[in-house]
Amino acid sequence: MQQRSEETHTRILESANLLFSKNGYDATGVAEICQAAGVSKGAFYHHFPTKQAVFMKLMEGWLNGLDAGFQLMLSQTEDIPQALLQMADMVGDVFESADVHLPIFLEFWRQAMRDPAIWQATIEPYRRYQTYFANLIQEGIAEGSLGPVNPTHASRTLVYMAMGMLMHSLFDPDHVNWPDEVRGSIEIILNGMTRREP
Amino acid sequence: MQQRSEETHTRILESANLLFSKNGYDATGVAEICQAAGVSKGAFYHHFPTKQAVFMKLMEGWLNGLDAGFQLMLSQTEDIPQALLQMADMVGDVFESADVHLPIFLEFWRQAMRDPAIWQATIEPYRRYQTYFANLIQEGIAEGSLGPVNPTHASRTLVYMAMGMLMHSLFDPDHVNWPDEVRGSIEIILNGMTRREP
Repeated sequence: MQQRSEETHTRILESANLLFSKNGYDATGVAEICQAAGVSKGAFYHHFPTKQAVFMKLMEGWLNGLDAGFQLMLSQTEDIPQALLQMADMVGDVFESADVHLPIFLEFWRQAMRDPAIWQATIEPYRRYQTYFANLIQEGIAEGSLGPVNPTHASRTLVYMAMGMLMHSLFDPDHVNWPDEVRGSIEIILNGMTRREP
Repeated sequence: MQQRSEETHTRILESANLLFSKNGYDATGVAEICQAAGVSKGAFYHHFPTKQAVFMKLMEGWLNGLDAGFQLMLSQTEDIPQALLQMADMVGDVFESADVHLPIFLEFWRQAMRDPAIWQATIEPYRRYQTYFANLIQEGIAEGSLGPVNPTHASRTLVYMAMGMLMHSLFDPDHVNWPDEVRGSIEIILNGMTRREP
C-alpha cells in the first residue's frame, strides 16, 4: 500500500508538471491533473491540499536535484573554476534533455508576481543560489584560483546567465547546442573572474 | 484631427501596456483596454486590428527605443568595450526606472510559446541582438580592444545576462541597485573578453 501511495504521488506530480508546462498554471485544474494521472480527486487531496502545493512541490524537487548535483561536482573537483565548469556542464545537460519540463519555470515566475506564497518559494531558492555561488567564489579567491573579483557581482552574473539561458531554451529550443553554449559562456565569465588586474 | 488620432493611438498603447503588465495578456480584453484608455471600440479597431497587434506594437516600440539608444552610444564612444559599458549603463537605467512596464516581457515570452506570430515577433529581434553584439565584438577584436574571444559565445553571454537581469528585475525588483548591478556584471564579462590567453 505504501508503494502504491508513492506511485500515486509521483503520478500526480508528473501529470501536473506536463499540464502546467503545456497549458499554464491558471488553465490547469485539479480535475485535469486527476484525469491525466488516472487518480480520483479524493486521492489527489490525500496527497496535496491544493494545486498550489503541487506546483511548489515540483519546484522543490527540481531544486533538490540541482543542489545534489552541485554538491557532487564540488566534492569531485580540485578547485573552484573546475567545479564551476562541471556545474555548467551539468546545467547544459539539463537544458539539452529537459525541454519538455522547462516551460514550467515561466509559470513559476509568472505566478510568483501574483501569489506571495509562490513568490516566497521562488525567490528564496534564487537568493540561496546567489549566496551559494558568492561563497564558492569567495573560496576560489581565498585558494588563489580566482582573481580579486567582487563575489556578489560574480555570483549574480552566473545566476543571470543561467536564468537567461533558461529563458532562451524555453522559446528558441532547437537553435542551440546547449552543452557547447553553456561552456562558451562560462569560460568567458571564468576568464573575467580569473584575470589579474594589470 | 491628425493630432487627436495620434493621441488615441498612444493612449490605447499605454493603457494596454499597463493592463498586460498587471493582469497578463490573456486576462486583458479589448473592452478593458478601451475603458482604461477612454476610447470606443470603434476607435480601437480603427487603430489596431486585434489585441495581438497592440501587443506586438508595444514590443516594437520598446525595441526601437533600445536600438536608438545603442546606436547613440556607439557613435559617441571610442572603442567597443567603452560602447558596451555605456550600453550597460543605459540598460541599468531602464531597469531602475521602468519597473511598471517590464512585466509585459514575461507576457511576450509566455505568449511566444503559444502563438506563432508573437513567437516570430519576439524571436526575430532577440536573434537580431545576438547578431548585433556578435558584430560589435568582432569589430572590437579587429580594433584590438578585445581579445581573441568567440564572438558568438561572447554575444550570447551578453544577451543571456541582460535577459537574466530582466527576469530578476521582474520578480525581485526592490533588492538591487540596477546601475551598479549591470556595471558589476558587464565588467566581469568584459574582463573575460579582453583577457589574452597566457
